[in-house]
Amino acid sequence: MEAARIVKINEPLEVQKLETPKPKGSQVLIKVQSAGVCHSDIHLWEGGYQGVAGQFMKTTDRGVKYPLTPGHEIAGVVDTMGEDVEGFAKNDKVLVFPWIGEGLCPACRIGEENLCDKPRSLGVYNDGGYAEYVLVPSYKYLARIGDMDTDTSAPLSCSALTAYGAVKNTSIKPSDNVVIVGAGGLGLMAMQIAKAVTGARIIAMDVNDDKLQVAKQSGADLTINSKKEDAVKAVMELTGNLGADAVIDFVNATNTVEIDMQILRRRARVVLVGLFGGALQLNLVTMPTRAYKLIGSYTGSMTDMIELISLANRGVIKPLVSNRFKLNQATEALSMLKQGKIIGRGIINP
Amino acid sequence: MEAARIVKINEPLEVQKLETPKPKGSQVLIKVQSAGVCHSDIHLWEGGYQGVAGQFMKTTDRGVKYPLTPGHEIAGVVDTMGEDVEGFAKNDKVLVFPWIGEGLCPACRIGEENLCDKPRSLGVYNDGGYAEYVLVPSYKYLARIGDMDTDTSAPLSCSALTAYGAVKNTSIKPSDNVVIVGAGGLGLMAMQIAKAVTGARIIAMDVNDDKLQVAKQSGADLTINSKKEDAVKAVMELTGNLGADAVIDFVNATNTVEIDMQILRRRARVVLVGLFGGALQLNLVTMPTRAYKLIGSYTGSMTDMIELISLANRGVIKPLVSNRFKLNQATEALSMLKQGKIIGRGIINP
Amino acid sequence: MEAARIVKINEPLEVQKLETPKPKGSQVLIKVQSAGVCHSDIHLWEGGYQGVAGQFMKTTDRGVKYPLTPGHEIAGVVDTMGEDVEGFAKNDKVLVFPWIGEGLCPACRIGEENLCDKPRSLGVYNDGGYAEYVLVPSYKYLARIGDMDTDTSAPLSCSALTAYGAVKNTSIKPSDNVVIVGAGGLGLMAMQIAKAVTGARIIAMDVNDDKLQVAKQSGADLTINSKKEDAVKAVMELTGNLGADAVIDFVNATNTVEIDMQILRRRARVVLVGLFGGALQLNLVTMPTRAYKLIGSYTGSMTDMIELISLANRGVIKPLVSNRFKLNQATEALSMLKQGKIIGRGIINP
Amino acid sequence: MEAARIVKINEPLEVQKLETPKPKGSQVLIKVQSAGVCHSDIHLWEGGYQGVAGQFMKTTDRGVKYPLTPGHEIAGVVDTMGEDVEGFAKNDKVLVFPWIGEGLCPACRIGEENLCDKPRSLGVYNDGGYAEYVLVPSYKYLARIGDMDTDTSAPLSCSALTAYGAVKNTSIKPSDNVVIVGAGGLGLMAMQIAKAVTGARIIAMDVNDDKLQVAKQSGADLTINSKKEDAVKAVMELTGNLGADAVIDFVNATNTVEIDMQILRRRARVVLVGLFGGALQLNLVTMPTRAYKLIGSYTGSMTDMIELISLANRGVIKPLVSNRFKLNQATEALSMLKQGKIIGRGIINP
Repeated sequence: MEAARIVKINEPLEVQKLETPKPKGSQVLIKVQSAGVCHSDIHLWEGGYQGVAGQFMKTTDRGVKYPLTPGHEIAGVVDTMGEDVEGFAKNDKVLVFPWIGEGLCPACRIGEENLCDKPRSLGVYNDGGYAEYVLVPSYKYLARIGDMDTDTSAPLSCSALTAYGAVKNTSIKPSDNVVIVGAGGLGLMAMQIAKAVTGARIIAMDVNDDKLQVAKQSGADLTINSKKEDAVKAVMELTGNLGADAVIDFVNATNTVEIDMQILRRRARVVLVGLFGGALQLNLVTMPTRAYKLIGSYTGSMTDMIELISLANRGVIKPLVSNRFKLNQATEALSMLKQGKIIGRGIINP
Repeated sequence: MEAARIVKINEPLEVQKLETPKPKGSQVLIKVQSAGVCHSDIHLWEGGYQGVAGQFMKTTDRGVKYPLTPGHEIAGVVDTMGEDVEGFAKNDKVLVFPWIGEGLCPACRIGEENLCDKPRSLGVYNDGGYAEYVLVPSYKYLARIGDMDTDTSAPLSCSALTAYGAVKNTSIKPSDNVVIVGAGGLGLMAMQIAKAVTGARIIAMDVNDDKLQVAKQSGADLTINSKKEDAVKAVMELTGNLGADAVIDFVNATNTVEIDMQILRRRARVVLVGLFGGALQLNLVTMPTRAYKLIGSYTGSMTDMIELISLANRGVIKPLVSNRFKLNQATEALSMLKQGKIIGRGIINP
Repeated sequence: MEAARIVKINEPLEVQKLETPKPKGSQVLIKVQSAGVCHSDIHLWEGGYQGVAGQFMKTTDRGVKYPLTPGHEIAGVVDTMGEDVEGFAKNDKVLVFPWIGEGLCPACRIGEENLCDKPRSLGVYNDGGYAEYVLVPSYKYLARIGDMDTDTSAPLSCSALTAYGAVKNTSIKPSDNVVIVGAGGLGLMAMQIAKAVTGARIIAMDVNDDKLQVAKQSGADLTINSKKEDAVKAVMELTGNLGADAVIDFVNATNTVEIDMQILRRRARVVLVGLFGGALQLNLVTMPTRAYKLIGSYTGSMTDMIELISLANRGVIKPLVSNRFKLNQATEALSMLKQGKIIGRGIINP
Repeated sequence: MEAARIVKINEPLEVQKLETPKPKGSQVLIKVQSAGVCHSDIHLWEGGYQGVAGQFMKTTDRGVKYPLTPGHEIAGVVDTMGEDVEGFAKNDKVLVFPWIGEGLCPACRIGEENLCDKPRSLGVYNDGGYAEYVLVPSYKYLARIGDMDTDTSAPLSCSALTAYGAVKNTSIKPSDNVVIVGAGGLGLMAMQIAKAVTGARIIAMDVNDDKLQVAKQSGADLTINSKKEDAVKAVMELTGNLGADAVIDFVNATNTVEIDMQILRRRARVVLVGLFGGALQLNLVTMPTRAYKLIGSYTGSMTDMIELISLANRGVIKPLVSNRFKLNQATEALSMLKQGKIIGRGIINP
């Protein structure tokens, strides 16, 4: 089979010929039809993240090994199955849950494998979906997608899942004000989800008026262009000078989080999602006196993904797919994403 | 009546003659028998807290007005009552809930007045218990203490309450490891409470071997002297190299929180309680990837206080009172506390 | 002032001249503009509820005293205020929270006064809104309604509140199936709310096709006419033979609950709301083996009501007012409601 | 290998020679050292449970097949392992989690396999631990027991687990009163656990003074002999005429639950655990007006079991093993249990 792989960091991906895996036991081989191109794939390509004080946090220090086939948003059909697989048949159309854990830690024990002590995520620690086939370690990581097409479904396993996990972490209720920072793919999906399941008042913040326009269509009640207006002042005005009950920061960079910390109502939750990185000078005494919560939010669980499929199947949420690529265009897909040229989600169809 | 008041910051408290308040409506006048001396009273005396980058956060900027009668741990007997008071009678022995809110914000609406948008706490924003009498705005802030004496009860309204609130914020379970940083009055009480209601394994951390000895008697399973040994290494060894599931930091200073952040298991909760202050360089990208939660914890609710009274009444927890003072010794009490000379709780008996 | 009062059970209400109350302390006198006519007012009129084995449970045994001015859905304007009232001004347009508790029990302590040990609800234990004026014991029970009119707002304090409380008690999530039994005023509102804040799949059940038609417009994904088809079989088919994850029964009569118990998935929650009454032969061993939960749900909290006002103000939910009456038509209003002639909500405009 | 099996209901168990299973994939063969004898094994032996109106609910209608090797409390050592097993080695001393699900239902997805739609429990739907060896479908159902012996550990997988699950379902807090009905093995363990992790006041109820004596040693604050005194009156007196905040009924028979329903405070939770069976005439209107919750509680999760092992390892709880049997004494063990002759837990050592 063919796979587009990161062989050396920052160099073009290579399309390699690999042996097609043979599933055994509970394993299932999926014929990939759609693989979403995610911003975190760029970090794998670049080999790391921005830490504090200019420090670079290497992916290899976190257990990533190259060459690697990236791609964790994988939808396709069941090809072949190990002898212990139950409940699935050849050609079943499925979405793959990629945030696989080792199964023995406290998080895995309650179905939060995405937060496992020793993660084995597909497309990160194991070969993923930028390939004709992907080997899934158990049929338990497959979910049927009903009538949806695979392109639309793929982003539900990361982009929408991360947005959903973040919304859940805010604990927002109908009378709350939530500020969503960053109206990119994840932010817009978070608005759709927050609209569908919370009833809260949504304030979208971005530096781009076009994106803020889409934000309104995605469920935002109000928008703030933080480039054009004083974001802190704007939030305080829109919240009756109380501040936001919750903030979800899909950028999570020094400058955005510094603003976040100035727009908080007492008891506010700041949900940090983005991987832009950098450092925040956190005022320690303010944490207890203002009863703030800073919450790191990382993707979501298999249960969350199944809930999203249910919402998407009934049209309650609508993932936005904007660009399609072939396997040999993987480098182009990542480059375009890096340059901010992809609105919605880019999909590789191997 | 007489009251020991902060007239000017950092100067000795003055014992002043004030008119004894007359309760009306739902108000109750309490004859103070015991007023706990709390570390946060020192901040009122000093006029503020340590912020980031050497900045000083003034109490007057947070709405405190001088002269002020401090004292928020208040136990005594009902003296006189307004005409709308129900369910209480003269001489009823009670503990006062001092963390009073304005009653209309979302926190007040669910009984978390300690987290009110516009707090009216006794001994902070209104005159408190370093006095012969204190005026409580409603009988709803009084709780009967049964057979307990007032000296033992007083710390339940702040010292033990803050410890209890912090323990709740950890969400710890029987198989978790919790590190409690600071084996002073609050830390030791947190150990007693965690022992009584969580079943978790407790690791006490302090720089003083005598305090760590008391920690063991208070419920700590293990202790670490962070002055004598490498605290990070010690925690990792005691947790099978996984890190702590939760940390409660009763110091909350730059150097303690820097250690906290190095001993965390993925998904860990860091509960920040102390008011020592300073800043932390927070690594932003680590928040989502490691799914950490930083939780500011501020005192507790009336319900929490009633639960503590129930526990203390049955001997499940035992507040430790160590020093007693008269009203005209208030300055001495605060000075001794500041110098670390009070183990357990100091009480003023007006 | 004039008030329409139940003087003797089952006899026409009398419009009496009463002295207009004078508010003191925290009390507020509200000039009633809209008072909703609720099905539970009929029980007050009839003097009781249907218990087990033909037994009649008298309202007087539960502490109700006659003559009584009913009416717990009260919207109007602030008329006069006691000297301790804060944050309100004459002519402020408000909705009254009627489910007032004594303030000292564990439920009151966390803002669930609707579940108080010793309730003092307006229109039930104290005179209510079928009157020109109503005395509210504290400004803390008032909520501003913004731009909404009082007729539309009134049902938010009971009809919609009860529906919201019931929906919350189901703990339903996007991939769950919830059956809502009874497509009357409360059931339809529950569908609107479940649609707005849960994302679950809603199955409406009733015996009336017209109501089921409205159910579809209110958010029901599917409908079952339990008179025309085998309700148990229908639910099993719609849920892939698994059964419902939750049922909300707004009738709560022997025959409806007997059906409820046959359509349950393992782990299902049955939320009992209606006051029709009667008895159920509950199979005890099935409770643990099937892990069922039977949950009695009674109105909602002040916080819930504020959340509903927020939702209604933004048009997310739309209370349906269908009939309007004058004070001297109170008996007619109750009679029409009893005969099932009011679709939506009847409102008395004193 | 030898196994003691139920071949025909109500007839003596037969010790049969069976082929020793060979583990493959993730499977593990455990050499059984201790198998607890549980009251639910008697129901398997008798072929069913008592339903409503004299009806008998057959085990075969719930999917049980005979001949069956019972035994779901299984502790032993790892014997042989399939090729995919990780993290375990031959002779590792382990406790088996028997409440295995199919893995795909919503309960399994969050680690509550004990509540699976299609359970595959060992000793119920598959052969269990009354045998020399038992085949466990995955190493994920094994938990190390540290220094504990297997006899003491075995009851942690059902007896203590069911007690723990029930205590969790009560949601009790330190100021609550909980009545525990039935001071047998499960009831006594529930008292130990409630004492260790809730801080609530525990009232034990039984008909046997000897058992109530042990109840006091197990953590009960108060006891009631419901044979000798009026149980309803006694509970009301002990709770200041308020009633219990929660009841756990380990008998769950008509007569005990009828008492339960008379001792409830508003908002009370009644947790039904026992399998004695029969029916309750449930007063429907009381459910909403009193806001009661009836909660069926069935065993517990793998996470719960791991937490219990942690508690038992540190001596916080102490399972009581009282009788030991050989494999060929299985019938005798079940008979003695049925006749109430086993205090604590009986263990089969194959």
